[in-house]
Amino acid sequence: MWSLDRQDVEDLSTGAAILGTGGGGDPYLGKLMALSVLKKGMKIEVIPPEDVPDDALIIPSAAMGTPTVLIEKISKGDEVVQAFKRLEKYYGQEVFATMPLEAGGVNSVNPLTVGARCGIPIVDADGMGRAFPELQMTTFNVYGVPCSPMTLVDEKGNVVMLDAIDNTWAEKIARAVTIRFGGTAWISLYPMHGRDVKRAGIPHTLSLARDIGRSVREARASKEDPVDAVLGITRGFRLFEGKIVDVERKTVAGFARGEAKLEGINDSAGRSMLIQFQNENLVAIRDDEIVCSVPDLISLLDVDTGLPITTEYLRYGYRVVVVGMPTNEKWRTPEGLEVVGPRYFGYKFDYIPIEERMKGA
Amino acid sequence: MWSLDRQDVEDLSTGAAILGTGGGGDPYLGKLMALSVLKKGMKIEVIPPEDVPDDALIIPSAAMGTPTVLIEKISKGDEVVQAFKRLEKYYGQEVFATMPLEAGGVNSVNPLTVGARCGIPIVDADGMGRAFPELQMTTFNVYGVPCSPMTLVDEKGNVVMLDAIDNTWAEKIARAVTIRFGGTAWISLYPMHGRDVKRAGIPHTLSLARDIGRSVREARASKEDPVDAVLGITRGFRLFEGKIVDVERKTVAGFARGEAKLEGINDSAGRSMLIQFQNENLVAIRDDEIVCSVPDLISLLDVDTGLPITTEYLRYGYRVVVVGMPTNEKWRTPEGLEVVGPRYFGYKFDYIPIEERMKGA
Repeated sequence: MWSLDRQDVEDLSTGAAILGTGGGGDPYLGKLMALSVLKKGMKIEVIPPEDVPDDALIIPSAAMGTPTVLIEKISKGDEVVQAFKRLEKYYGQEVFATMPLEAGGVNSVNPLTVGARCGIPIVDADGMGRAFPELQMTTFNVYGVPCSPMTLVDEKGNVVMLDAIDNTWAEKIARAVTIRFGGTAWISLYPMHGRDVKRAGIPHTLSLARDIGRSVREARASKEDPVDAVLGITRGFRLFEGKIVDVERKTVAGFARGEAKLEGINDSAGRSMLIQFQNENLVAIRDDEIVCSVPDLISLLDVDTGLPITTEYLRYGYRVVVVGMPTNEKWRTPEGLEVVGPRYFGYKFDYIPIEERMKGA
Repeated sequence: MWSLDRQDVEDLSTGAAILGTGGGGDPYLGKLMALSVLKKGMKIEVIPPEDVPDDALIIPSAAMGTPTVLIEKISKGDEVVQAFKRLEKYYGQEVFATMPLEAGGVNSVNPLTVGARCGIPIVDADGMGRAFPELQMTTFNVYGVPCSPMTLVDEKGNVVMLDAIDNTWAEKIARAVTIRFGGTAWISLYPMHGRDVKRAGIPHTLSLARDIGRSVREARASKEDPVDAVLGITRGFRLFEGKIVDVERKTVAGFARGEAKLEGINDSAGRSMLIQFQNENLVAIRDDEIVCSVPDLISLLDVDTGLPITTEYLRYGYRVVVVGMPTNEKWRTPEGLEVVGPRYFGYKFDYIPIEERMKGA
């Protein structure tokens, strides 16, 4: 068990946003939420998954919806606690800990708020090791953990409890509710036991996020390249360096969908790059060649600071480095790829691990 | 307390469909559902509202969605019982009785199924005295009874429990869930106490429906005009007699919206009539003059049999009598008209009671 201090929170929200691959919410907003908890004197305590008792009840906490809308609806942090407490009440037994569903600027931080305010630890694990746009896109799902019963709460105070027949229906119904809420819901879902976390979760994502954020900060302080620091920890690749020249974006069926076009600068490895996203970055195409795709991670980092740029902040003129990072092995199985591989997102090609693509290059 | 026999069930589903003003579901389907309960030897017992103890917990049962879809998804009757039991479990106390939400071929019968299968009586009252398309369109709402907590269940087994901040939000969120379910949900909602039923409900709608159905049957048996029998009991008016020459219908935002055009036959009071509907018939316009509008009741009866034709069964060539019937006094207050008056449905005119309109004619 370790406690997060202010510096940890800042590092974690930076690193989580890099793992968030463009989604998972604004790291600045996430940081503010977590810092306000520390300011009130509450403790944020993280427990490694291996220390969680097998029979302990764990309930993850998150936000759902388009990050574009999330920015406009600044949360007081009450909603995600409400969602958690409603689901806890449904079980009528004490919950041992909460946990992130995914990595992301806000979604790595939401569970910290819940843990601190409910006086329980946060498990150092999640169900994606990155961010994905849909609820069934978790390793929990791949390993047979049901998404529901789940709760959804909005900032007005509406509460929905959902008990779906499977995780795909949980996603469909929860998405309809989230859209009706106005675009964002705070959720608790995938209630599970300690043994499920160990079996089905991706371990140590919170400490990985903190380590990534810390290395970016330290590299900047010592005038080293922060992007190299990220690549060192994540075993990632520098895919492209360029300027954003066009961004198309629209909210479709509750998702922020779109694409960004980049033109090469400096000694970039290509002349142009196209990034396609659905909340999160899905595919990176360099000079008409796919160089990275889901479930591998694609993140855009500010060329000077190494700080991540989420899809809702993509703007003309930004100078970025595009990095590609290998995904967790749990996603590289046939069962994993069925849920989050390129074909699920409507692409006509099979997944090739980024290391193999880079060998060929 | 009185028990319904087979004949009562048939009469009730006919009469309820006449009060259903085109919505509330197919009377034939409703009849089949109720008869199957009697066939299994279960009892359907109805209790007058004045006999319900003030402190008794009552939970109404209904179906929600476009009747058009309801026809295609024949219910086994399990879903509405599931919805009821989930809400009962939420309260953790015994429910004294169930009740209809509205009058209609299916929605007057759904509570009969629940009552028989759960071994509890059905209160002889409802929240509309007719059918309306939206959940907040109840006298319960007008008198301050909250719509939620409510449950929604689909035929696949998905369950949603909703706790909304007000009845308008309950409608919005429940509608989104119903659409996502595929167009139909079985619901339990407006949990209330006996004193609320007496204060906020419309009493004796089940026995009124049975009486209307019985009078139609008896008139037909004795070769009298069944339409006159309906008008006698409901203090209604014969607005038009004609042939359907055109029907436009589409499912919009989870509702069956549209209009039917009629041409006069026999000695009809006008040359043409236009009926506009949203699940239920809203407005009747005769030779360009409004002759009846919500919340007064507009029903189309088969010219030969006196049996009601719901909006989803309107077809070219049908010969019908259009009848207008005065609504319950609870709807004629300013508070009632705000919820179900013509202006709520987007019309630019004020409500005039049908008796006044007929005096002028």
